[in-house]
Amino acid sequence: MLNILWFSAPHPCFLGPGQPCDCLPPLRAAAEQLRQKDLRISQLQADLRRPPPAPAQPPEPEALPTIYVVTPTYARLVQKAELVRLSQTLSLVPRLHWLLVEDAEGPTPLVSGLLAASGLLFTHLAVLTPKAQRLREGEPGWVRPRGVEQRNRALDWLRSGGGAVGGEKDPPPPGTRGVVYFADDDNTYSRELFEEMRWTRGVSVWPVGLVGGLRFEGPRVQDGRVVGFHTAWEPNRPFPVDMAGFAVALPLLLAKPSARFDAAAPRGHLESSLLSHLVDPKDLEPRAANCTRVLVWHTRTEKPKMKQEEQLQRQGRGSDPAVEV
Amino acid sequence: MLNILWFSAPHPCFLGPGQPCDCLPPLRAAAEQLRQKDLRISQLQADLRRPPPAPAQPPEPEALPTIYVVTPTYARLVQKAELVRLSQTLSLVPRLHWLLVEDAEGPTPLVSGLLAASGLLFTHLAVLTPKAQRLREGEPGWVRPRGVEQRNRALDWLRSGGGAVGGEKDPPPPGTRGVVYFADDDNTYSRELFEEMRWTRGVSVWPVGLVGGLRFEGPRVQDGRVVGFHTAWEPNRPFPVDMAGFAVALPLLLAKPSARFDAAAPRGHLESSLLSHLVDPKDLEPRAANCTRVLVWHTRTEKPKMKQEEQLQRQGRGSDPAVEV
Repeated sequence: MLNILWFSAPHPCFLGPGQPCDCLPPLRAAAEQLRQKDLRISQLQADLRRPPPAPAQPPEPEALPTIYVVTPTYARLVQKAELVRLSQTLSLVPRLHWLLVEDAEGPTPLVSGLLAASGLLFTHLAVLTPKAQRLREGEPGWVRPRGVEQRNRALDWLRSGGGAVGGEKDPPPPGTRGVVYFADDDNTYSRELFEEMRWTRGVSVWPVGLVGGLRFEGPRVQDGRVVGFHTAWEPNRPFPVDMAGFAVALPLLLAKPSARFDAAAPRGHLESSLLSHLVDPKDLEPRAANCTRVLVWHTRTEKPKMKQEEQLQRQGRGSDPAVEV
Repeated sequence: MLNILWFSAPHPCFLGPGQPCDCLPPLRAAAEQLRQKDLRISQLQADLRRPPPAPAQPPEPEALPTIYVVTPTYARLVQKAELVRLSQTLSLVPRLHWLLVEDAEGPTPLVSGLLAASGLLFTHLAVLTPKAQRLREGEPGWVRPRGVEQRNRALDWLRSGGGAVGGEKDPPPPGTRGVVYFADDDNTYSRELFEEMRWTRGVSVWPVGLVGGLRFEGPRVQDGRVVGFHTAWEPNRPFPVDMAGFAVALPLLLAKPSARFDAAAPRGHLESSLLSHLVDPKDLEPRAANCTRVLVWHTRTEKPKMKQEEQLQRQGRGSDPAVEV
């Protein structure tokens, strides 16, 4: 700028012979300008040395509602295998918080270690199922629903916090956007399922594969509304849906503090015991292409036979107990 | 620089009264300096506007040997669930190529669709098990090993290509670094397992959980060498290891073109029928912390009961066959 002005004005030294020369001010101004430009160059060089900002996360996870996945679990031979498999599936889902609730008096080393190694955001909870509710030797699995106390423990934590034995201890702050899903540790989940449930406003629903003696069970949808249910068993239950077939918006769960699972509910009515507090069946939100896509399967893992293990143990040659399986 | 020189030298205007003032050259020099600095500032600003270079890929996947995962699969109710679960696990592993081999005359829409949606690098193969080798109605599963023809089909493709019905059609070019692993679709795999096998030089081995009636089966290791095997069943087999318990370097497999699985091998000898061509038991490479960590589990998924489905189908109310499960 100034360098243009200098040469368009008459040079101050030529005001007249004998008069004191007046070119000191423009030289001082030029020196000051050079100082300013050196400063600017230093600043720009510093800006260039600064590491580039982290690239924007493709779906901007902070903007996504959190998916709270509630998983009850209990000690058994296939427990670690099932939890490894599930944790790896969950690791594919952005903005997810795993609430793993052990059916135990306190945290076990197997589960604590697995959670720590999972890389997931998690809260570790534990509550022992009361003896009266526990399955007795020889009773078929359907007599008493499993995981009721554990799911309710997770609901308590979401509502008021407290009691976590590992991981994130504080419940979601008021106003948190999120959705709560009850994911048992033996089912099979497509990663796509989680994006179907993420923007649930009240209660969302979808089909579940290989459940209830059918290829799939699920809502029947007409004109975008749930008008009934495809199920073979007690179709007149208030909500004939499997635990894996629905998700609930977190604000709705927090607004209805009495909504919880009832361990005394009749067989097949456990889901209804929660959902009846939360939603009218006609307001269920159908997902997964109007409930025409199966994205979760009610798989069951066989109990491994340990006959050879018992034989070897009697001979003192059992599998090394120090090796975690 | 120059601005310091100016004020340490006597000002040129004060050479004497009446003499022509000589401050034009320093002012011109200052102007030129300012022009140079403006140019430098423009350059730096342009540098800052330039997008940052793409961040370096953390493990530089191109430098890693490829893991070729060979999975035989056959149509059944839980097939899609199992393959979804496995494909999601494999999607966590860099530099992996899935060879999925259907026990079918040709590719099925279910498997083709699943592979296309998986995001994995894959080759889709298909070969029907000859009738004489197929399990007969009522025969227990262990009478005839499953997947033999399919695994051999994958070996053929790795060696000479041809016959792929989907995905990558060309076999690895000569000199490709890689490792081959036979991963059935029902086992459970920790993502860590794949990094254990990636740098296999010949044949690597590790324990497998929940197999052979034991908590785990696996090599016994002393001073970093395999000295025996923990197994309850026929410990004197040449290689008493499960299909999920070893991986073979690709160059070794290519160097031994006669190495394949023998469908006529006695029960429990299928793995040995391949490995006997490839390695001496004493040269097995123990992985997974000297075979003290279980990173794969021989889980088995229950066959779902379809009693209600059959009842509803008789009433014309069966599950919509258009919905893929």
